[in-house]
This record gives sequence, structure tokens and C-alpha cells, in this order.
Amino acid sequence: VKNTPSAEDNLIARFFKPLATHPGAFGLADDAAVFAPPPGHEIVLKTDAVIAGVHFLPDDPPDAIARKALRANLSDLAGKGAQPAGFLLSIALPNGTDEAWLENFCGGLASDAEAYGCPLFGGDTDKTPGLLAITIFAFGTVPAGKMVQRAGANPGDVVAVSGSIGDAALGLKLRRDPALAARWTLSDDDRNFLVARYRIPEPRVALAPVLREYASAAMDISDGLAGDLAKLCRVSNVTARVEIANVPLSRGARIALAADPALREPILTGGDDYEILFTVPAARWESCVKAAAQAGIVVTAIGTIEAGDAAPGLIGGDGKPVAFARPSYSHF
Amino acid sequence: VKNTPSAEDNLIARFFKPLATHPGAFGLADDAAVFAPPPGHEIVLKTDAVIAGVHFLPDDPPDAIARKALRANLSDLAGKGAQPAGFLLSIALPNGTDEAWLENFCGGLASDAEAYGCPLFGGDTDKTPGLLAITIFAFGTVPAGKMVQRAGANPGDVVAVSGSIGDAALGLKLRRDPALAARWTLSDDDRNFLVARYRIPEPRVALAPVLREYASAAMDISDGLAGDLAKLCRVSNVTARVEIANVPLSRGARIALAADPALREPILTGGDDYEILFTVPAARWESCVKAAAQAGIVVTAIGTIEAGDAAPGLIGGDGKPVAFARPSYSHF
Repeated sequence: VKNTPSAEDNLIARFFKPLATHPGAFGLADDAAVFAPPPGHEIVLKTDAVIAGVHFLPDDPPDAIARKALRANLSDLAGKGAQPAGFLLSIALPNGTDEAWLENFCGGLASDAEAYGCPLFGGDTDKTPGLLAITIFAFGTVPAGKMVQRAGANPGDVVAVSGSIGDAALGLKLRRDPALAARWTLSDDDRNFLVARYRIPEPRVALAPVLREYASAAMDISDGLAGDLAKLCRVSNVTARVEIANVPLSRGARIALAADPALREPILTGGDDYEILFTVPAARWESCVKAAAQAGIVVTAIGTIEAGDAAPGLIGGDGKPVAFARPSYSHF
Repeated sequence: VKNTPSAEDNLIARFFKPLATHPGAFGLADDAAVFAPPPGHEIVLKTDAVIAGVHFLPDDPPDAIARKALRANLSDLAGKGAQPAGFLLSIALPNGTDEAWLENFCGGLASDAEAYGCPLFGGDTDKTPGLLAITIFAFGTVPAGKMVQRAGANPGDVVAVSGSIGDAALGLKLRRDPALAARWTLSDDDRNFLVARYRIPEPRVALAPVLREYASAAMDISDGLAGDLAKLCRVSNVTARVEIANVPLSRGARIALAADPALREPILTGGDDYEILFTVPAARWESCVKAAAQAGIVVTAIGTIEAGDAAPGLIGGDGKPVAFARPSYSHF
């Protein structure tokens, strides 16, 4: 009798092994993987899970689900100033998941793993009578002692964000109710842009070295700008004042907001931005902007860190802080 | 307005922060954690998930679920010769999970994290409309280049296992059908022992340095001895001959097997053993046994590695290889 691999081993070899390009992954033919950070470096560790119906829509394309799951983790690594090094994947596949689904899923994952220099090191595949769930554990490297922390913002620091805010929250609304595109007077291009920002975020990996050099504190924005700014301020023992008019919006978000001013709240609190929120000593802000531009990323000053333990103020056009019904996404 | 934490942050601070004793975990108040292996060491990476109804019974005590989830990963690290260093936890909590459940769950996890020197470094908590699922990513350290691989067994090597085999498979049957205890003529103590072996495995962490010193190949047994031996042989490009009579059984398993000889198959293929399967050059076997005994772990020679690519033979009392209907647990 030949010693033939199990169906599970065959599935892993066929779909996942091509992503395991690092020698420490042993071609996924071992029980664990091995990794050593470069000399003088530490490992930054992050895990984030996505569940069907909670974090993505069940009919999202499998390759987009895969990419978003990986990119959400890469976004966290970027916010910590870390260079991606690899990931492990735990996936619970509902009964009846077919090979076409897996092939598409792994195709998206492979393409991102290569684009971000973040190969697969191992994982765990299960069948579940429940929902599709994907848990990614990603790790990166930073020079020892240089992980950019949430705590560290000081009064007088500039509060800044990368890219544009609120696109994904609007994109999700558009996916749930396609009629909104007309009500928000969006062109097809603007609508597609916002939906794409929800489906496949753009982790700001290139900003990592800039953050290590300039940021006093940083985190990625996944639960909404308002709530994530509150978290950063809380652990830094400071507060902040942000002019909402300074918050950078994409063309689509500006058009939608003009058509429906009530969108200000989901834009500032909706989450899934995967941009970076960070603080920089005021004297270094101009050079930080230049360094970010050289890395190909637009960063925008939106406010200032202040002393105190009050909730950060997001200031509206009338000069008064805006109160939100639900300032941050929270599962609990 | 005070900057008060979200309900999710409060939950994390209350239940999970006490487990985050390493400074690199930042008290779970950051987005990621940082870790550096000791000089000259590498990191060994492993992830393993458990899902309600698939890997444990929904009415298992929460602390036992937590311990088993962590220990399954520690067992893999042990099989690779790695010392546990820490873990990340991603948990999907069904709607309605109450604080008493979480407190009990985290109590079990905290107790094992301390016992095994494996603190919590971070994680992700989600609510799910689906099933309770726990994904643990555990990492350990080995001297550089010393991870014990699955590949490496050579013809002539002794095939060995730690502890006793088959207890958990019998324990699961006993949990599913309590009437079996009487049919198998088990005392309460023997029954309880077998059920405990299913509920809370004993990762052979103390065997790790012995494996690094003596083993040519190793892995933990989670999908059944027969199937896991086949996997080890396949990647080592060898085969093996094991005398079933040599496979170490606990008192309870011996009594049950005497009462029902058909239990031979689940004992050898049932999985959840979390013992170590390993191979050792014959000339070093005696010193390996002594080193293991000094580490407090009984190891038993059960067969020999042979040249060839046939499926390993598990030899019965009649001198002939036994064929199993389902040699290994496989999700697919």
C-alpha cells in the first residue's frame, strides 16, 4: 500500500503551499514554522479575524475577502512602523465550500502575499457547520525598541491621518442599498471607488519607516476616526482638538456629504478606513509630510493634541464639538 | 465629557489584561505586541483553532475549552523542540455569551499561561451570530537551526511515543455515550481519567529539549497515531513497522480494549492524543529514554523506521499489518 496523502494534505499542497515561499515555512509540510528577525530587530505580532456577515458580506468575491483579511493585519503592522514578514492563516470553511471558491480565495491571498512581501508560514484549515471565518496572524519586524506605540502623543503634537477618511463606511452603505448612489449624486466611478475602498483596503505599508522616524504615537483606523482618536488619546493621557473641515475626504465622499450632510457621522465613526492616525511633534511636521510624500503617501494635519483627559473634540463648522450617537465601532 | 473606554476595551481590560504579563504586550492597550527571541534563537510559529461541536462539545466547561485550545498549540511547539514564549488569541463569542462564561474561560487560560510560562500577547474579540470559535497563535523559541522537523527519520531509527495512546479517543466516546463505561468494565477512576485526557491534554513541553538533543524527526499526535506516523514517514521518505502490542496504553484503555477488542482502531486512529511521536537513531535510544525520564516523561519504543515508500505497517498479534477504515482524522 502506497503512503498516500490525506485529502486535507492534498488540499493544503494544492491551494496553500504556493504561498509558502519562505524556507522557514517548510512548504507547509511540517507542524510549525520557524522565523528569525534580522539582527537588531524585534518581531511585531498581530492577529485579526473576519467572520462572514460581521466583517464582510457573504457574497463578496473570495479573493476580496482574502485580501481584506490580510490587509487589515498589514494595516496594523504599518501603524506600528513594522515591515511585514509573514502570516499564518486559520480558516473555517463552511460545509460545501467548493474548489473554485478556494482557488479564487487563495489567488487573492497569493497576489497580496507577493505584493507586500508577506508569505504564508503556516495555518490551520477546518470544516465548520457554522460561518466562514478567517483568522490571520501577521508578523513584521522593527528595529529593536522602535515599534510605534499608541501611547506617546504629547500636548502640542500635530494630529494627522493618511489618505482619506470615511470612504469604506460609505462604500458599505452603497453595497447594502444600491439606490443610495443616485441619492448621493455619485457618478459610477465615484460609487465604484467607495465600494472598492470598503472591499479592499490599502494598507499604508510604505508609511511604516516614516512613522518610526516622526510619529510620537500611531495606530491604524479600523473602528472609525472619532473612536480611534479617543483610544489613542486615552492611553497617551492627553486629549485632542480636530477641525472636522480638515479631515481629508475623497471626491466621492465630498459629493455624497454635500448631498446628505448627515453622512458626516458615518464618515467620522464608521470604521474600516485602514488609514493611519498618528501624532507628530509640531516642529517636525513639515519634514514628516515631505518624507511621507517621498513614500508616495499623502498625510494631512487634522488637529492638535492638548493636555487633559476629556474626550477629544471634533469641531464642526459652528466652532463647537460634535457629539456622536455611536462614536466608535464596538462589538460589545 | 470624560474620555471613557468602550465596552470592548472594558471587557479586554477586565478579562484578558491579567494574562498579558510580558512587557511586549503593552497591557493589551496597543494594536500589536513586540517580541524578540533570545540571542542565537529563532521563533517557532504555530496556529490551531477549535470550533464548538467540531473540536469540543458545546457544554464542555469553559476553562477546559480554553486550556485545550492553548495546550493543543503548546503540544505542537513541544513536538518541534520549542520552549513556549507566548500566544495571541482570537475569539468569536456567540451572542449571549455572559460574563460568568468569560470569567471561567479566562481563568483556565490564565492558569495555563502561568503554568507553561506562555503569556498572552494580544488578540481579537468578536461577537458572532455563528459558533464559538477560538483560534490560538502560539510561538516559542529554539536555538537557531534546532527546530525538530517532521522530515528527518532514517531507516533503522527507533519509532517512539510519549505517554499513552488512545485515551482521548476513548474519553470522547465515553462523553458521547456514558453507558459505555459499564460495557467497558471501567471503574469511575478509569472512566474519569479517560474523559480528562480528552478534555485537557498534557502537552509534553518538558520533552522539548530531549527532542532537540535526540530526535531525528518529531511531531505531536493530534490526528491519530496511525495517520500521523504516515505523515512523518511521507515527508521523511521512509516507511515504518510498528508492533501494535508495543503501543503504550493507560490502565483504562487496556481494560476497555480487553472488554471490546474493536477499540483497537479508535485507539490507534482517533486523535486528540497530544503525545509526541518521534524517531531516534537506535544507538542513542537508551540515553534518550534516560533523558526523558529525567524530564519526568515516559517514552516507549513502538517500532522501527524502514526504507521504502509504503504506508507504515501497524502489525497485529498475528504478525500481519492491520488495515484501518479511516487511518487518520481529516477535515476533508
